[in-house]
Amino acid sequence: MHLRVINPNTTRAMTDLVGRAARGVAGPGTLVDAVQPTMGPASIESHYEEALAVPGLLEQVALGEAEGVDGYVVACFGDPGLDAARELARGPVLGIAQAAMHAATMVARRFGIVTTLGRTTGRARELVDRYGFAAACTGVRACEIPVLALEDPASGARDRVAEHCRRAVDEDGADAVVLGCAGMADLCADLSDRVGVPVLDGVAAATVLVQGLVTLGARSSTRGEYAPPPPKAMAGLLAGFEVRAPAPVPAGERPAQRQHARV
Amino acid sequence: MHLRVINPNTTRAMTDLVGRAARGVAGPGTLVDAVQPTMGPASIESHYEEALAVPGLLEQVALGEAEGVDGYVVACFGDPGLDAARELARGPVLGIAQAAMHAATMVARRFGIVTTLGRTTGRARELVDRYGFAAACTGVRACEIPVLALEDPASGARDRVAEHCRRAVDEDGADAVVLGCAGMADLCADLSDRVGVPVLDGVAAATVLVQGLVTLGARSSTRGEYAPPPPKAMAGLLAGFEVRAPAPVPAGERPAQRQHARV
Amino acid sequence: MHLRVINPNTTRAMTDLVGRAARGVAGPGTLVDAVQPTMGPASIESHYEEALAVPGLLEQVALGEAEGVDGYVVACFGDPGLDAARELARGPVLGIAQAAMHAATMVARRFGIVTTLGRTTGRARELVDRYGFAAACTGVRACEIPVLALEDPASGARDRVAEHCRRAVDEDGADAVVLGCAGMADLCADLSDRVGVPVLDGVAAATVLVQGLVTLGARSSTRGEYAPPPPKAMAGLLAGFEVRAPAPVPAGERPAQRQHARV
Amino acid sequence: MHLRVINPNTTRAMTDLVGRAARGVAGPGTLVDAVQPTMGPASIESHYEEALAVPGLLEQVALGEAEGVDGYVVACFGDPGLDAARELARGPVLGIAQAAMHAATMVARRFGIVTTLGRTTGRARELVDRYGFAAACTGVRACEIPVLALEDPASGARDRVAEHCRRAVDEDGADAVVLGCAGMADLCADLSDRVGVPVLDGVAAATVLVQGLVTLGARSSTRGEYAPPPPKAMAGLLAGFEVRAPAPVPAGERPAQRQHARV
Amino acid sequence: MHLRVINPNTTRAMTDLVGRAARGVAGPGTLVDAVQPTMGPASIESHYEEALAVPGLLEQVALGEAEGVDGYVVACFGDPGLDAARELARGPVLGIAQAAMHAATMVARRFGIVTTLGRTTGRARELVDRYGFAAACTGVRACEIPVLALEDPASGARDRVAEHCRRAVDEDGADAVVLGCAGMADLCADLSDRVGVPVLDGVAAATVLVQGLVTLGARSSTRGEYAPPPPKAMAGLLAGFEVRAPAPVPAGERPAQRQHARV
Amino acid sequence: MHLRVINPNTTRAMTDLVGRAARGVAGPGTLVDAVQPTMGPASIESHYEEALAVPGLLEQVALGEAEGVDGYVVACFGDPGLDAARELARGPVLGIAQAAMHAATMVARRFGIVTTLGRTTGRARELVDRYGFAAACTGVRACEIPVLALEDPASGARDRVAEHCRRAVDEDGADAVVLGCAGMADLCADLSDRVGVPVLDGVAAATVLVQGLVTLGARSSTRGEYAPPPPKAMAGLLAGFEVRAPAPVPAGERPAQRQHARV
Repeated sequence: MHLRVINPNTTRAMTDLVGRAARGVAGPGTLVDAVQPTMGPASIESHYEEALAVPGLLEQVALGEAEGVDGYVVACFGDPGLDAARELARGPVLGIAQAAMHAATMVARRFGIVTTLGRTTGRARELVDRYGFAAACTGVRACEIPVLALEDPASGARDRVAEHCRRAVDEDGADAVVLGCAGMADLCADLSDRVGVPVLDGVAAATVLVQGLVTLGARSSTRGEYAPPPPKAMAGLLAGFEVRAPAPVPAGERPAQRQHARV
Repeated sequence: MHLRVINPNTTRAMTDLVGRAARGVAGPGTLVDAVQPTMGPASIESHYEEALAVPGLLEQVALGEAEGVDGYVVACFGDPGLDAARELARGPVLGIAQAAMHAATMVARRFGIVTTLGRTTGRARELVDRYGFAAACTGVRACEIPVLALEDPASGARDRVAEHCRRAVDEDGADAVVLGCAGMADLCADLSDRVGVPVLDGVAAATVLVQGLVTLGARSSTRGEYAPPPPKAMAGLLAGFEVRAPAPVPAGERPAQRQHARV
Repeated sequence: MHLRVINPNTTRAMTDLVGRAARGVAGPGTLVDAVQPTMGPASIESHYEEALAVPGLLEQVALGEAEGVDGYVVACFGDPGLDAARELARGPVLGIAQAAMHAATMVARRFGIVTTLGRTTGRARELVDRYGFAAACTGVRACEIPVLALEDPASGARDRVAEHCRRAVDEDGADAVVLGCAGMADLCADLSDRVGVPVLDGVAAATVLVQGLVTLGARSSTRGEYAPPPPKAMAGLLAGFEVRAPAPVPAGERPAQRQHARV
Repeated sequence: MHLRVINPNTTRAMTDLVGRAARGVAGPGTLVDAVQPTMGPASIESHYEEALAVPGLLEQVALGEAEGVDGYVVACFGDPGLDAARELARGPVLGIAQAAMHAATMVARRFGIVTTLGRTTGRARELVDRYGFAAACTGVRACEIPVLALEDPASGARDRVAEHCRRAVDEDGADAVVLGCAGMADLCADLSDRVGVPVLDGVAAATVLVQGLVTLGARSSTRGEYAPPPPKAMAGLLAGFEVRAPAPVPAGERPAQRQHARV
Repeated sequence: MHLRVINPNTTRAMTDLVGRAARGVAGPGTLVDAVQPTMGPASIESHYEEALAVPGLLEQVALGEAEGVDGYVVACFGDPGLDAARELARGPVLGIAQAAMHAATMVARRFGIVTTLGRTTGRARELVDRYGFAAACTGVRACEIPVLALEDPASGARDRVAEHCRRAVDEDGADAVVLGCAGMADLCADLSDRVGVPVLDGVAAATVLVQGLVTLGARSSTRGEYAPPPPKAMAGLLAGFEVRAPAPVPAGERPAQRQHARV
Repeated sequence: MHLRVINPNTTRAMTDLVGRAARGVAGPGTLVDAVQPTMGPASIESHYEEALAVPGLLEQVALGEAEGVDGYVVACFGDPGLDAARELARGPVLGIAQAAMHAATMVARRFGIVTTLGRTTGRARELVDRYGFAAACTGVRACEIPVLALEDPASGARDRVAEHCRRAVDEDGADAVVLGCAGMADLCADLSDRVGVPVLDGVAAATVLVQGLVTLGARSSTRGEYAPPPPKAMAGLLAGFEVRAPAPVPAGERPAQRQHARV
């Protein structure tokens, strides 16, 4: 099985980090690679950046389809471009917010989210609602740490994250914590020890869940919402993303992925 | 007051249509123009197309800010890029799905949505939930009409739309109908007459609501989620969307819009 | 366009206040007047008073219909008598709680409510739920200020309101504030400045929204719940509110408003 | 124990009917009387009529308090004036919609509502939501029978009610049925037999529940929302409803009911 | 009428306590007895204990059916085995959590729950959601008192319970309190006095509500979910719980309770 | 890794079936065994049977803990005894309803459930609500097939299941189907082909999800709700389930599983 973790920003260190986190939990027969877009923002801390990360992310999915990738992890806690990626991919696509929240509700009644910047909590709440976990979520806590500071041991960032995890448990009543940023992927084990409840990183969670879905043969239906996008002209700067009509396929089979001009 | 309607696809006829719909309801002192992106899909009928419409939409907002536009209408029923646009704009930004649903719940207890393609109903339901109208919505009905066929009188498209509006009322219990596509903007009055309940078009609804918000001086807070995006490197094809740090501003004022390289 | 703001209590100073707030935001072609009932309580701070304010409110709507009023604002944060008023009125009728909450969710993800007396918070929560904004509302804060004290600059009332607005933002996570009393209509701009997020007054919000709905031609359907009330005997003290059968009307037209004995 | 059933309309036959229904289930030591207002509509089939029934209903509660009544049933399925009545009454006050829904969820997972006119279903749904039973309610079915026709055996009304009860069970999946009109109070046993699931009448349900609450000593708190209404001037036609300040009471006791001018 | 309160643990003092609480509120013609299982845990403070309390509870229901009991109260705040008991019983079966929450919402807008151990709050929240009272519940507070310590006046347990009731009102905004343990049944009146809002004990509440349902003739439908369990082999230690096919019954009647081997 | 699938009924053929389904999807390094209780019902088609299946299920978990099992699947669609099992187990425990619903929402926006008997749909809906998927579930369809008939090819059972899967998609709008019975575990691939959307079996889904959680090191916290049950006397027939106090453990470690008398 070939899984691909897509870091939707263009920072190589983050791509390496999420690749390691994913490979650390993948099963024996599972190949995991980690990629990043050729275009878009260096990190994602606003809706604007999230929106501009999506074209590059979709390009990576189109490339993955050409290579026969079996499933994808989108490694940003805003779960950008998930529905669009599902239309392109033959296999399952999971976001790390989605995966971490699902995993948390499988081992705990209520979970808290600890994230980086306060300005991202609105999106986190929106995802909580979308995935059905409003009653299970005790709240979203922001440490006010920039994403890229997590990598710097001298920043004190890790202690602040640990402090907010503890408060999610003691003050908010969580019995598990979801880490709200792909850049926190390697803090998980240490935090679980310090806080005494399960602390979940979405990259690892998404990896085992996508692997499981591929094993089940579970993929989005091609009949409805997630059918491949129709052929359509694409103008200007994004002309390379145009979808062209595929060659006819025998009835009963899933049509070949539509051809993307840019791939 | 200067309002701008952004058609997020690149089809000129649609831009003209939504411009007419907006100007038809704007107040005496309100200037309305309608624009379309220089890049992206010819119409929006999938998540993939919606995602790729957003960069061009954001470019139009950045241009509008440079021109001093007071408020924006995003004229696609999927409400693409709304949160990102709010970070860029000094004034309010409304999507037409959001506007039509708000207006419907102000004159009716429950509304139905009548849209074009079945594959778009998932997004419509997601927006219903996000805006808080799950209990008020009697369902989403798809006519299975391509967006661009609405313009063709010989297609029978209008009768199918009317038929589904009637069924939303008689079978589903709606007492208002929301039209689920910007391309239906000019069917509204005729359908209200034929169906006997209010039928709402989002373009007109969004225009009067944005005009109202501008009059109230209501704009997204710059303190939290919708603060301007931070300066950040933007790579590759999208380098032109890079946000650069603005010149310092006197305390107490809203900072000047960050400068976008592409504008 | 002729809009009418109805202050449902009998205090003239409040009627003048809400009239000014409404006229301050009405468009060039819009005539706004403000009226108050001939019967009922001097202010509304309990369910009992709210219930007894409704007959006088309905009398004003019946009078407005006779004069051809195009739309109504009910200027009390409990939104009393809204559904009944809709049955009488040809045009739209909005309550100020409804309007302020709708407007708040158009510019913010989550809003807090700051109101006068703790005993009114139950009704405020009920309206939040009814309008679909339970997930968007961060809570209802009571300043424990009597409605009529808001007018007295020496009471310190304004500082307490400002303090609660700040706490709604800083402690509860709101990014907009809704003022929970018609008597706060003139505090809006000052509070927005002091708190740094949009602060919304329902009187102004309802005025621009009703104006917009009238422009759209959006009015409650006469087919279902909001059809004119049937002719019916009315006994005793309220005999003047009896509805008599109207003269027959040509098919296809909206029937003339039923005649109210008291008007 | 002295319970009072208030029929909020002025039709004597209905008052007698609900009185019989209540007395049929009251316990040995419970005195039940049934009263009707001196003012207001002959029946309640619209929001307008419901609103105008409330003053007369409140007058009956004030009279009941003067007589030492221990608890009240409001015998109209719209539950008019409930919150206002609670402010006046020392003991519990239940509406028949509230009571029937509570009772239904105690013996069934999901219940359907069968009511008279389609135009009243909006209010029924609103009450379902307010009481927390949205997930438990399979829908509201209207027989399109005027309230007063239920009394006429030749009208075929009873067979239509039975038919809709059956469809609530077979088509909608209900395993109990709530009758949506006080005028259906005597159909209950017959319908339970014909339909094979519990069919609940709110008048009887409210009577046993209020009796139970009185036995428990459970009454609305006087500290918050349901404290007695403050003294307040009341103008014009409704001057008789003015609340005057009560004489001082010893600390720790519930203050004597405020004095109502009209009683 | 013959009601039975089943204490699902095997502690005699608790059985006596809940018997007294129930008899204290039962009507003149109502016989109440209190029983306990012959098997299972001495108290219920975990899901494990709750699960193991259910077989003994069901045995008591089967015995009660053989004796013609008309209705049952399950006297543990986790409402264990309620649905299973309903399949066995001809009459209504209520849990004390269910009953107390229903009663609380009849006299208050929002209630808080005060319970014994923090580890039981998850179950309490689950029941709040199941019964539809998520919006009405201000939270669950745990006193961290073992169930059996409530009986010991020297433990200070009662003061801690009172303290948490007060905080539910003052900090959480409750206007009624539900006591989250059958062992608190005799604290009710004292706490209501100290806290100034209604404090509800589920044993008393369930007793008056079951009595009311029996009077109404309301019992779970035998057509669907709560039909008697089908005859089925039962192995090993639990062989005595086997349900055997009953003798045929005339059409139209409720079949005789299936015979349980162990009874 | 050692996973155990527990069939909570005593029918050997069903145990073998679920064991095969689980082994078919387990990863290379994962040992899966399937067990069944020594006590309880032959199949689970009622709440009564579900309740009586739990003690035997818990005995199997206690035995598994003694053997060092890493994670458990409870193979009955009612998810019986899940919370109690979590208190006993060091590793994760998933029910098949829970697992199938989680997996469905990862590949589809909305799923339908197709189950055996109508009387079990109430429990299925309750689980949908508990897991947060009320908005994602299009409904529960019952084929009215006894559990054990699924094994009989001559019964036509499979065609009826397929027919209901199709209607869940075409009439209810599902884009995935969850099979509501462990006995349907081997129908999955065939049904996916016939219906054209993902059809999910909970046994396989739970196996890959538990395997993933074990890999993540995610287990229920021992601090709160899912801490091991306290030592407690257990009477009568169930005396063997008594939990005895464990030997003291060094601080910081998870205490050894409490010793169960019966194991």
